[in-house]
Amino acid sequence: MSYQIAVLAGDGIGPEVMAEARKVLSAIETRFNLDIEYSEYDVGGIAIDNHGCPLPDATLKGCEAADAILFGSVGGPKWEHLPPNEQPERGALLPLRGHFELFCNLRPAKLHTGLEHMSPLRADISSQGFDVLCVRELTGGIYFGKPKGRQGEGEEEEAFDTMRYSRREIRRIAKIAFEAARGRRGKVTSVDKANVLACSVLWRQVVEEVAKDFPDVTLEHIYIDNATMQLLRRPFDFDVMLCSNLFGDILSDEIAMLTGSMGLLSSASMNGSGFGLYEPAGGSAPDIAGKGIANPIAQILSAALMLRHSLKQEEAAACIERAVSAALEAGFLTGELLNANERHLAKSTKEMGDFIANAI
Amino acid sequence: MSYQIAVLAGDGIGPEVMAEARKVLSAIETRFNLDIEYSEYDVGGIAIDNHGCPLPDATLKGCEAADAILFGSVGGPKWEHLPPNEQPERGALLPLRGHFELFCNLRPAKLHTGLEHMSPLRADISSQGFDVLCVRELTGGIYFGKPKGRQGEGEEEEAFDTMRYSRREIRRIAKIAFEAARGRRGKVTSVDKANVLACSVLWRQVVEEVAKDFPDVTLEHIYIDNATMQLLRRPFDFDVMLCSNLFGDILSDEIAMLTGSMGLLSSASMNGSGFGLYEPAGGSAPDIAGKGIANPIAQILSAALMLRHSLKQEEAAACIERAVSAALEAGFLTGELLNANERHLAKSTKEMGDFIANAI
Ligand SMILES: CC(C)[C@H](C(=O)O)[C@@H](O)C(=O)O
Ligand SMILES: CC(C)[C@H](C(=O)O)[C@@H](O)C(=O)O
Repeated sequence: MSYQIAVLAGDGIGPEVMAEARKVLSAIETRFNLDIEYSEYDVGGIAIDNHGCPLPDATLKGCEAADAILFGSVGGPKWEHLPPNEQPERGALLPLRGHFELFCNLRPAKLHTGLEHMSPLRADISSQGFDVLCVRELTGGIYFGKPKGRQGEGEEEEAFDTMRYSRREIRRIAKIAFEAARGRRGKVTSVDKANVLACSVLWRQVVEEVAKDFPDVTLEHIYIDNATMQLLRRPFDFDVMLCSNLFGDILSDEIAMLTGSMGLLSSASMNGSGFGLYEPAGGSAPDIAGKGIANPIAQILSAALMLRHSLKQEEAAACIERAVSAALEAGFLTGELLNANERHLAKSTKEMGDFIANAI
Repeated sequence: MSYQIAVLAGDGIGPEVMAEARKVLSAIETRFNLDIEYSEYDVGGIAIDNHGCPLPDATLKGCEAADAILFGSVGGPKWEHLPPNEQPERGALLPLRGHFELFCNLRPAKLHTGLEHMSPLRADISSQGFDVLCVRELTGGIYFGKPKGRQGEGEEEEAFDTMRYSRREIRRIAKIAFEAARGRRGKVTSVDKANVLACSVLWRQVVEEVAKDFPDVTLEHIYIDNATMQLLRRPFDFDVMLCSNLFGDILSDEIAMLTGSMGLLSSASMNGSGFGLYEPAGGSAPDIAGKGIANPIAQILSAALMLRHSLKQEEAAACIERAVSAALEAGFLTGELLNANERHLAKSTKEMGDFIANAI
């Protein structure tokens, strides 16, 4: 089988962790007899520097011609003086999501055995572990709702944003959450604010309708404010969390931080035709960029998600995931996952990539 | 001095903790020679049962005639089958906030010395303590913005909510945050999502303008998603957090849970004329209602906030706060604040009220 991948490594640690993901993908190509072609494009801060905008036309065209986008990370202090909506992250990610209608965002977050001490949670809570899949709607809600803008003058000048959801938009993301729950622990927690938002009332109704087709899956509803609380006390009680765009943005970050190991988390953003963008959950980490110490696992796992969801190469995806687990279980770890007194055991970005590629 | 207070005890543990707050206020009246008159009104679930709606006219009229509202808590399983927006909490609180334009919500949350083990955070984080004041805008944003509703048919039927903020609304709440920071550690963290929301871009601009009048206060901006993360890793770095209505709802609950002792947290919701509603942060806790074990401290501290902000009796307020601290420091604790092996030392709701009233 032959595939075309658009590689958007971006800024900060993006290029160095991407190099390791490519190394692992090479090993996969050999082992599974796949033919993957890569085209590299600028995105984010580097694209602002080279072309004056975070998502140049050539990059977008390259993505259109590909089967999937493997995305690194964007942003850094150099571009922070720009107005928020011209900055690398927002200026690249939101248009890509909108353009390709990547409505379905999967953000798995798991507290790995042996890494419980990384969690900021109390030992008696983290020792119970957790494994949450956040299913976030990514092209609707208050992110893209119209009208959005300003009007009026002086002190009465006001800004406005519109949160908007159709039954269709809610139904398609809810289905994905229920399907995912079937392959996991069979529970969906739908997050809303139905005591305040009209969108959440409709959200709840449609989710209830979808639930009827999944009698084997348990459904519960939780208000977003309560969700942020319960995740702190009993993260292990959650399986799939189904969220609108804004609530998913907030909750998935809380959950990611609860693992304490953002360098291990990847995410998939997909549309209805199997096309998707795959990226690490962490940022561009400019403070450690270029030092060769960044953890490439999140990027490598993004490649696994790409193989699974866009290239439909489940075995190859699972093979990468097993290799990653082997590294973690062998205590083969990058520095940020080690306690201060064990830092001398830290593996480099490259060593980690080599280990995983060899395990393929 | 003579005052008129509307007492809305509500459901669940509301009436029993309110009784202790009244006991403490009696002691305050004697000691500070105040004359406080109380009128009791139904609110929430009990009001639905007795009058068919969570905020009867008589209750609203009674509040209009008072100098402040001392609020207990509302809600419980009995009313959970109702549509979300007819339920006790939403049906009582939102109209009260709107009717009296209680735009300023103060939610202080502190990890008390000696109670660090209550926090769900890892010991090395909680041992550093934290003391955060969440200043939440309470009558604007997506809670009250128009239009809000539904339109269309079939799968294209959609729901919409409008987030809306004027310069005036942002400025008045920002000022309060900066003034509060002056009396604390001099730092304001303004929470927004300026990379996505037009409201947040205006929010940031106006907050920057207000900051110019407070050169002695440090201002930083943080995105809501990042805020939920940073609070888990370094809660002690935050002093005053300035939030819009929705973000304040989410963040203040996260912070409350980080203390692990919701029974100690109270909040004030005020308008521009000194009128306010004072309530505990926790809910009606129907599971422990009527058992005499609920912690009355949050309700008692609500009375202190009422004395400070609406009755302008700072000394009386501080006196209550000292008495509460004395109880906590003496290890005089209700059951939920004790480890399982110390539960036999637990004080009852009434014993706690007596101790604090006597300490006045
Ligand atoms: C960069 C930003 C626009 C984006 C979002 O809010 O969706 C990011 O926080 C994310 O979660 O991917
Ligand atoms: C009951 C609900 C409408 C309310 C809110 O969202 O403001 C509550 O969660 C709160 O924080 O006081």
